[in-house]
Amino acid sequence: MELVKKIEIITNSLELPRVLKILEKAGVSGYTIIENVTGTGDRGRVINDLATQALTNGYVMSICTEKSEHQLVKAIEPVLKKFGGVCIVSDAKWIAH
Amino acid sequence: MELVKKIEIITNSLELPRVLKILEKAGVSGYTIIENVTGTGDRGRVINDLATQALTNGYVMSICTEKSEHQLVKAIEPVLKKFGGVCIVSDAKWIAH
Amino acid sequence: MELVKKIEIITNSLELPRVLKILEKAGVSGYTIIENVTGTGDRGRVINDLATQALTNGYVMSICTEKSEHQLVKAIEPVLKKFGGVCIVSDAKWIAH
Repeated sequence: MELVKKIEIITNSLELPRVLKILEKAGVSGYTIIENVTGTGDRGRVINDLATQALTNGYVMSICTEKSEHQLVKAIEPVLKKFGGVCIVSDAKWIAH
Repeated sequence: MELVKKIEIITNSLELPRVLKILEKAGVSGYTIIENVTGTGDRGRVINDLATQALTNGYVMSICTEKSEHQLVKAIEPVLKKFGGVCIVSDAKWIAH
Repeated sequence: MELVKKIEIITNSLELPRVLKILEKAGVSGYTIIENVTGTGDRGRVINDLATQALTNGYVMSICTEKSEHQLVKAIEPVLKKFGGVCIVSDAKWIAH
């Protein structure tokens, strides 16, 4: 197995495309999305409203190298600061195949 | 980035409000919920049944300090012991903003 | 709390039953499934299409001991190599109850 960094981003569903573009620009070709998660954050409660995505969050998980981690975090930070959201990084290993 | 503890709780959907109340009481203001996950546990298989939440699980993820981790785990333990469920803690870092 | 290994597997929804059988064979009795996640990987974009599961991914999360981790990874690797998908392992602790 190979050491990697696991990146998790939770942000407003409407900002999800922006976050995915940042991931792709940083060379992250694989990610998993869980749409329409709910929760509360520093900007108030998010309600799961099927009629509109404006009030739901999206969760994105990806794996990257330690080197691209710093680039990613730097690129994502202004989006989170502007629109709210969370970016979590943790150590992991994966089956590289 | 700032070191944090990542807390993940999986419990019966019906017990989810109880778990969220514990998080809020412990001063955890932000969390993410994924509703209606399925799986098996020590209390048997959970089936994703859209008609009733009684047999589905809920997933909650949150971030806290090492200090509040102990308080949280202590408060959540009796709920898991009584109703089943899982509480997982791991090390992570996040963009504090 | 007890030290454990957290295993996360993301694979084509159609291969999910195969992965769950491997987990059960390895003695992993508890896991959580999030069905119909989307994303991109080394085999192209996965679209969330409600009409068919052929193009969606499934996410499975489980906890195991360090000893069964090696057995699990070895058993899952050929499935990922054949059908695509990701297996991520990280350190965690949990409330054993």
